[in-house]
Amino acid sequence: MSELKGACIIGQSGGPTSVINASAYGVIRTALDSDCITAVYGAANGIVGVLNDVLYDMSKEDPAELERMMYTPSSALGSCRYKIADPDVDDTDYKRILEIFKKYNVRYFFYNGGNDSMDTCNKISKYMMKVGYECRIMGVPKTIDNDLFGTDHCPGYASSAKYIATTCCEIYHDARVYDKGMITIIEIMGRHAGWLTAAASLASITGEAPDLIYLPERVFDMDQFIADVERIYKENGKVIVAVSEGIHDAEGNLIAETASGTTAARDSFGHAQLGGLASSLANIVKEKTGAKVRGIEFSLMQRCGAHIASQTDIDESFLAGKVAVESAINGITDKMVAFERVSQDPYRCETKLLDLSAVANYEKKVPDEWINEAGNGILQGYIDYALPLIQGETKMPKENGLPRFAKLKKIKAEV
Amino acid sequence: MSELKGACIIGQSGGPTSVINASAYGVIRTALDSDCITAVYGAANGIVGVLNDVLYDMSKEDPAELERMMYTPSSALGSCRYKIADPDVDDTDYKRILEIFKKYNVRYFFYNGGNDSMDTCNKISKYMMKVGYECRIMGVPKTIDNDLFGTDHCPGYASSAKYIATTCCEIYHDARVYDKGMITIIEIMGRHAGWLTAAASLASITGEAPDLIYLPERVFDMDQFIADVERIYKENGKVIVAVSEGIHDAEGNLIAETASGTTAARDSFGHAQLGGLASSLANIVKEKTGAKVRGIEFSLMQRCGAHIASQTDIDESFLAGKVAVESAINGITDKMVAFERVSQDPYRCETKLLDLSAVANYEKKVPDEWINEAGNGILQGYIDYALPLIQGETKMPKENGLPRFAKLKKIKAEV
Repeated sequence: MSELKGACIIGQSGGPTSVINASAYGVIRTALDSDCITAVYGAANGIVGVLNDVLYDMSKEDPAELERMMYTPSSALGSCRYKIADPDVDDTDYKRILEIFKKYNVRYFFYNGGNDSMDTCNKISKYMMKVGYECRIMGVPKTIDNDLFGTDHCPGYASSAKYIATTCCEIYHDARVYDKGMITIIEIMGRHAGWLTAAASLASITGEAPDLIYLPERVFDMDQFIADVERIYKENGKVIVAVSEGIHDAEGNLIAETASGTTAARDSFGHAQLGGLASSLANIVKEKTGAKVRGIEFSLMQRCGAHIASQTDIDESFLAGKVAVESAINGITDKMVAFERVSQDPYRCETKLLDLSAVANYEKKVPDEWINEAGNGILQGYIDYALPLIQGETKMPKENGLPRFAKLKKIKAEV
Repeated sequence: MSELKGACIIGQSGGPTSVINASAYGVIRTALDSDCITAVYGAANGIVGVLNDVLYDMSKEDPAELERMMYTPSSALGSCRYKIADPDVDDTDYKRILEIFKKYNVRYFFYNGGNDSMDTCNKISKYMMKVGYECRIMGVPKTIDNDLFGTDHCPGYASSAKYIATTCCEIYHDARVYDKGMITIIEIMGRHAGWLTAAASLASITGEAPDLIYLPERVFDMDQFIADVERIYKENGKVIVAVSEGIHDAEGNLIAETASGTTAARDSFGHAQLGGLASSLANIVKEKTGAKVRGIEFSLMQRCGAHIASQTDIDESFLAGKVAVESAINGITDKMVAFERVSQDPYRCETKLLDLSAVANYEKKVPDEWINEAGNGILQGYIDYALPLIQGETKMPKENGLPRFAKLKKIKAEV
């Protein structure tokens, strides 16, 4: 191990989660406590903050406020959805990043995000190696989507899963309160992978799960869907359905678009901005059945509901950030921190390190054997996998009956 | 006081809340423990269960499950939206209710609901007096809408308010995470009264409240709304707006209908079934500003989110049910239990009794002096009023990281 003295940057990227700040705090706290990291900078809005030379000096923050990042949702340093170019096509951004790294003597770079962010992290890492700038670069995973390759699960997923399962338990009671028939359609996030929607099935351990669950891993057949709903409606007059926003037909057309007759807007990565599927499906089902139908979107609440976060997730997220820094200090670079389940009962996960190039841009789907044959339900294998992840109630501090989230001063770093 | 021996019925009516079962449990527990109440029956789906002779014998339930009603959302006995006729026009239902009361020797009737339910309760009470059937009839209030007349607040309101304020704190962080502009429009329940939407302003004590809040107490001017949003968007690129589903123009037309170009369905009381306002307003604002706009509905979650209920609300809801039974046993009838705030700091509420006829069908609005002059914000008077109500974290029991709600056997009563 060669000791490398220098500053570090932590950046956050991609969509919010309840626990991404716990990971960032894991990085910041460990870095502040380390002898060889000479300064700890937070990039304003991820890599965009590096490009724009807007870095915050984390040593200027009140330690008590920093600690509150453990329980503060979304990205306290700000996030971005900036798609960095292929360096072989356009290396402008990379030259600029190198310039900033040199300016602040940055020798450690930690990037906290999902699939696209790991791709960015990987490209920067490879560029720095190519140009021979000594810098240790580590990915710290987060994504509610749980679609990162090579890790048992992703920090952020469990807290969203706990929100979704808890809310399904509650809606179960709400949606069957009347003496009249009622069909409820719940739309859950997840463009290509159905992990979040599958979490609705966790409510089955209390007997309160949706009757039907549709993931984007299977082709969505509208006629079959309507037949499924009608069958259960006839049986007991109450139906609860959970659908993933990313469900699509055999040709790959999004039902969110075909059912509403509109085309979704797209973000800078080309991802469709979905939403509205629940109400489109509700309209279709209403027309077919004549029943009272309500569409519900869990919307942003499923990703920022820190008050119902999993403490297991919070602790693991912190650990991921901490291990990233410790590993980098120990000479490791070009890796992402991942989790390996070493024991199922009792549940225990350990960290491991994966090559950034092995995780970037791959998407992990829900295994086929965890989805029932009809493609409208989730099997026990998933429950066994996910239930340990949602254990533990958040220790989020409250004041006046409301969350007390971190308030950072965000003082601009100076060289 | 004359001792009156006989059975009691508890019925639940109207929309779910997180704590209506706490009130029902207050009735059931107190009645089961009383000497002069000879049997405790739960009406299946409120007054409909009485009319259909479907009553559950509460003494047959496991006491531990009954106790879990304290923390179980929605109506464990089932609810209804049945509009009872004016007895002078059609007394069929009343004759049937009397028949059932006689069949089971019902001498106590407790009805747990909101405005419309208090009207039903009042009509039954007056009918029983008219025909000389000795029966003590008490209303036990619940409504997330907080619009019942004569009471400081309504059981159920505070828990929804806590959900709304907490979620606004969280969305504040989510909705400003990116380096790009963003406008977020949150739709909150409340047809005629803006109490629930006003609760978004509680997040101001942490500096995380929406920038603009519109209640149905004021006329909604679309041009002014767009100007308000554009002004704040220009100032800081991020805007969060909370709107009540019931906002309307000067002619009383619902914006939920005029903005979407559709007509809402109506329930059996003639109330419009709203929803979809946030996405209609989002489309309008998107077109006007070109900004990224997201519409969010708090939907059912705001009324069944028991996991974030106010323990103050839960305790008061239980108390309301308990006092209803104790008062009836002491000879009182034809009243609704209400709350009177006897101290603001420290907060302390006592129960009082109101004539059913004085509360039925009146709607209490948010006082004009708690809304700012521009009609787009909430003033300190409201914060002082509502903040004490959301204090206290729920003691809801959990198993396997999920809520453990009551499971009633619902065994049909026999004479």
